[in-house]
Amino acid sequence: MNKGQKLLKKAKKIIPGGNQLLSKRSEIFLPEYWPNYYKKAKDCKIWDLDNNMYYDFAGMGVTSCVLGYSDNDVNSALIEGLKKGSMTTLNATEEVELAKRLLKIHRWAKMAKFCKSGGEACMVAIRIARAFSHKQNIAFCGYHGWHDWYLATNMQKTNNLDKQLLPGLKTKGVSKSYANSIFPFNYNDIDSLKKILTKKNNIGIIIMEPMRGQEPKNNFLKKIRKIADQNKIILIFDEITSGFKDIYGGIHLKFKVNPDIAIFGKSIGNGYPISTIIGKRKLMDCAQDTFISSTMWTDRLGFIAANETLKKLKKENVNSKICNIGKKIKKSWIKIAKKNNINISVGGLNAIPSLSFDYKNSQEISTFFIQEMLKKGFLANTTISISYAYTDQIINKYLKTVDEVFKQIRFSFDKKKFLLDGPIRHSTFKRLNG
Amino acid sequence: MNKGQKLLKKAKKIIPGGNQLLSKRSEIFLPEYWPNYYKKAKDCKIWDLDNNMYYDFAGMGVTSCVLGYSDNDVNSALIEGLKKGSMTTLNATEEVELAKRLLKIHRWAKMAKFCKSGGEACMVAIRIARAFSHKQNIAFCGYHGWHDWYLATNMQKTNNLDKQLLPGLKTKGVSKSYANSIFPFNYNDIDSLKKILTKKNNIGIIIMEPMRGQEPKNNFLKKIRKIADQNKIILIFDEITSGFKDIYGGIHLKFKVNPDIAIFGKSIGNGYPISTIIGKRKLMDCAQDTFISSTMWTDRLGFIAANETLKKLKKENVNSKICNIGKKIKKSWIKIAKKNNINISVGGLNAIPSLSFDYKNSQEISTFFIQEMLKKGFLANTTISISYAYTDQIINKYLKTVDEVFKQIRFSFDKKKFLLDGPIRHSTFKRLNG
Repeated sequence: MNKGQKLLKKAKKIIPGGNQLLSKRSEIFLPEYWPNYYKKAKDCKIWDLDNNMYYDFAGMGVTSCVLGYSDNDVNSALIEGLKKGSMTTLNATEEVELAKRLLKIHRWAKMAKFCKSGGEACMVAIRIARAFSHKQNIAFCGYHGWHDWYLATNMQKTNNLDKQLLPGLKTKGVSKSYANSIFPFNYNDIDSLKKILTKKNNIGIIIMEPMRGQEPKNNFLKKIRKIADQNKIILIFDEITSGFKDIYGGIHLKFKVNPDIAIFGKSIGNGYPISTIIGKRKLMDCAQDTFISSTMWTDRLGFIAANETLKKLKKENVNSKICNIGKKIKKSWIKIAKKNNINISVGGLNAIPSLSFDYKNSQEISTFFIQEMLKKGFLANTTISISYAYTDQIINKYLKTVDEVFKQIRFSFDKKKFLLDGPIRHSTFKRLNG
Repeated sequence: MNKGQKLLKKAKKIIPGGNQLLSKRSEIFLPEYWPNYYKKAKDCKIWDLDNNMYYDFAGMGVTSCVLGYSDNDVNSALIEGLKKGSMTTLNATEEVELAKRLLKIHRWAKMAKFCKSGGEACMVAIRIARAFSHKQNIAFCGYHGWHDWYLATNMQKTNNLDKQLLPGLKTKGVSKSYANSIFPFNYNDIDSLKKILTKKNNIGIIIMEPMRGQEPKNNFLKKIRKIADQNKIILIFDEITSGFKDIYGGIHLKFKVNPDIAIFGKSIGNGYPISTIIGKRKLMDCAQDTFISSTMWTDRLGFIAANETLKKLKKENVNSKICNIGKKIKKSWIKIAKKNNINISVGGLNAIPSLSFDYKNSQEISTFFIQEMLKKGFLANTTISISYAYTDQIINKYLKTVDEVFKQIRFSFDKKKFLLDGPIRHSTFKRLNG
């Protein structure tokens, strides 16, 4: 057993589930063999507790570290911030600077608020929207965090969230009073939205990820904007994952559809905790009629991290570069799969390419893929998040290794057996025993 | 107009209310004249945008920076953390270290969870408690943040929160379905709790600050523990403000009453964003039956900041030292007030002493007090949070200055006029115009 798994065993006895994030669980990647903990990370390299070095093609911190781990420019600014004090009785000027910067990118928005976590930012957006609208219920599409207002959908039907991103999310402890306040619709299925817009459902808010797995088809986003306008519904785009990836700003800028409120997190601070809600003035101003306030949201370092990250993304044209890398990897995956006679599908934002093995035992195959990539020095997954730290040399090494492992997959198909060292990885939220 | 107020005017046009925290609003301290922004802060000194240096006797970052601003030891650890990467695809070992450390201090607790903000930690605690209990409603006492479950109490009566800490909190946008899910009781008034424990109210959770303004009287906390046990109610102590202040750990350790769940934030990271929920195993384990998960909660720096802060608090016996300073200041306030023939009351934790002017125009007097202290180089308030960075020299200078300003207050009483340069400070949550 590797040192990481040994420590994880101890962790599970004192931390429910062993950590704070489903998407960083060993069991989601490679049960019993995933290194789980890191000592050090730089650029796209990461060292585990046994001093093994890996290239990270498994999400770069759940898509947050676009500039790469421990970016020197962001670090310099953060270190200066630490030395000059990051939490005081007074406020940080960098907060105003960040608000200006975001509103300059998104001209449709006039005001900004800041928090720390993504789920928290979604909760703030919902509060503001509810403060503005007389219609309190929500239509949603996509993943929006752990809060009551969202999970409540699984009270109507326990599988309501299964098609969104993470299946099997359990709702125990969600206030039962929320049960009929939220309704799911499906991406690129405008009829699924129309169907739930009944008078009885009293929907005043649509919250959605403007794009995750697939591109919008048949003017999907434009149609939603129109429906929202016609029905006096507030449209919220959750860009926590899609923001500042394929393009500098929100992916909605590419599709030329503006929401009323947009939410960003993750990559805006290159992994440093900061999230933001931007929106139209008449809406955001409602934040003054409801109490939304937290000490930690005033942390200077969050504003500094975001200012430095956005400056660098813009100055070095990072988003268009990572987009090109992503396109290249998508094409190469298809080519390599064809060469090895393996059926895969490829999707996702260009900056967050994903592949799926088109077989009934896809979960077994992807476990084998992750297992073999790990042995060859890569943290791998079926979804990757492109980092600016990926050099041509590293990308070529990655693709060469994918080719080798796809060969092994072909061989396993032919032998009708995938040699897994441990259990198949989890595809859903599950109880983990300590 | 000072530079800070000029920038604030701009900020209010693009950030609702101008910042992210009610308790850092200029209007709460000294409207139109408070410096509002800082350039630099070190120990208990802070520099504003006009390069004025002040000693901070106004809360040290809303009670969070017990070790002082920009503490060298915490900084060193954080800088090393930044250089080694703070957000990756893998988990941070420091998370396990912190869980162990907290559970060693609180032997009654067996598991820990972590988040970033305080209100967020309260929400997690409520979710876990609701996941465990069949009774979903809440009795509360004290301040517990901005979330729906808490603000909902003001839907029953708009002044339900007025006695808790912050009066006038508005609930627009809080889900209306929560209206009858939460019931307030008053500190040191056990009957006010008993009265709401009716069958109809279905209370399964008591959440409270174990101490804020006044000490528990007549075994108040012990009585609450007994009532909770008798009624199978989960008892949560919110120690976000009181934790690691008068004593190392939670203030409940002093009163020898253990809750089922305790929440910490603010000072555990010396102002760096980190909060925690610790609790009994059977309860905390319910976190595995409900989805509670966030990327930013895995930030390594939060765990590092808390580990370093707690190590230093313990090693240098900081809590007992700041407690003694607080006692000295409380005594000196009384002495100085007596000398100047001013009626004040003194209360609060020893590490968070507070004074109130016992007059009808107390808000006017405290505005004058803050105004004159500011002119003499102090950020002052009627509540202060003792910092380990307060030297004898600085404390004596502070007390000497308080004496001078109390003289002016006496003079103003005699002249029947307080010469205010601007408006009286706000005592409640109010809309601010941009």
